Amino acid sequence: MQRYFVRASDVDQQKQSVTITGEDVGHIVKVMRFSPGDRIICCDGTGNCYMTAIQEIRRDQVNCRLMEKIHDDRELPVHVTIAQGLPKGDKMDLIVQKGTELGARALIPFTSSRTIVQLDEKKQAKRIERWNKIAKEASEQSHRSIVPEISGVLSWKQLLKIADQFDLALLAFEGERVTTLYSYLQNLKGNLKILVIVGPEGGFSEEEAAEAGAAGFKSVMLGNRILRTETAALYALSCISYQFEQIKFIVGKN
Amino acid sequence: MQRYFVRASDVDQQKQSVTITGEDVGHIVKVMRFSPGDRIICCDGTGNCYMTAIQEIRRDQVNCRLMEKIHDDRELPVHVTIAQGLPKGDKMDLIVQKGTELGARALIPFTSSRTIVQLDEKKQAKRIERWNKIAKEASEQSHRSIVPEISGVLSWKQLLKIADQFDLALLAFEGERVTTLYSYLQNLKGNLKILVIVGPEGGFSEEEAAEAGAAGFKSVMLGNRILRTETAALYALSCISYQFEQIKFIVGKN
Repeated sequence: MQRYFVRASDVDQQKQSVTITGEDVGHIVKVMRFSPGDRIICCDGTGNCYMTAIQEIRRDQVNCRLMEKIHDDRELPVHVTIAQGLPKGDKMDLIVQKGTELGARALIPFTSSRTIVQLDEKKQAKRIERWNKIAKEASEQSHRSIVPEISGVLSWKQLLKIADQFDLALLAFEGERVTTLYSYLQNLKGNLKILVIVGPEGGFSEEEAAEAGAAGFKSVMLGNRILRTETAALYALSCISYQFEQIKFIVGKN
Repeated sequence: MQRYFVRASDVDQQKQSVTITGEDVGHIVKVMRFSPGDRIICCDGTGNCYMTAIQEIRRDQVNCRLMEKIHDDRELPVHVTIAQGLPKGDKMDLIVQKGTELGARALIPFTSSRTIVQLDEKKQAKRIERWNKIAKEASEQSHRSIVPEISGVLSWKQLLKIADQFDLALLAFEGERVTTLYSYLQNLKGNLKILVIVGPEGGFSEEEAAEAGAAGFKSVMLGNRILRTETAALYALSCISYQFEQIKFIVGKN
């Protein structure tokens, strides 16, 4: 079933209707060729998804009738934020797309001593707009009920300060050759907030690893091989799913 | 430390030397700008890696002196083969690169009822050559001692017949909504051979899932969200690393 993310304010509970605007209108009309009566899923981005029927298709908006709330929770039972050292080229596109598929709740791009990419304010705004679009499409495709938040680019110093907002803050560090992800996750339970920091192509300096340690981050190795920067976050998210989704406990409608 | 894969026959134990030919010569001379005396790691592709010193650089070959065998085993403790339904575009390049980083021992491309890509014999040979090159480079980059084997493209019927060569044969099936990867892996121990089959973009038909079941494959869900075909193998490999590399038990030289 095709799903679209709308703003929470586009859902009118009183009128039992939802209004779709923007690029999704073109997708509904031109790509999917839906007609009034066809069913689509609309999600409000805060975790609520509804089965709806298309009522009216106009040039710039599609109106749907709410039919029923969908209880098919595919979100990870823990909140995972990936802080990603800005990589070169279009690797961040891949990380945003795959990170969304794999259940990340938020992504924070950051710069550190070995960051090569330079983004001025205008370029940064454009990239963030692009990444948000990729996250929305990947959320629709992977049947999520939430679109991950993508923040502005933080500096290394800014990033270090947010460790205490999380129950577990990990630093993927190539120099860590003993402590595995398993050793941190194996006994964790409950609705935790986890932050995983992944460096840019060159990784972290020993000094940065020490600063992160002092700020409350724990160094972790992600398996036994050297992963490229764009693979590390996907490894961490897959393992977190493996650990916290051991049992499929909610089978909902789809 | 830069590493290169050579053929086993390029290593001469009696003379304690190794000969590098082909494209790696250009990489050594032009990209890395190495000179005689510089150290590089040479791996023979069967699991043996050596610290070597460059002795002589010629136009079309580089001769190195073996210094010592390296005991830094970064291979997964289980043998994992990924059978991948041929995806569209250059997605297989990504799967080969990331699958190699994540420790796959072998990759088998295959076609099934929902395969869209058509490769004639000539195109197939070219692609396999390309994928082998990507696997070699990714093995070097991720510090592996083995380059994954990439087989020719199998048909669905051929693929079904190989299940009994493995200790565990899994089918990543979107229709499986109960049994997790964890439930199959949690109690496994030892040097096992695992096969994971991932379908092309459209997944498998119910009929194919039934045929796979009859052939000895077990259906498995890979987390709670719908993964794109190119993400599924990476999820499975990451989880296998998480499960079987819980403890870092061999810390070698690097």
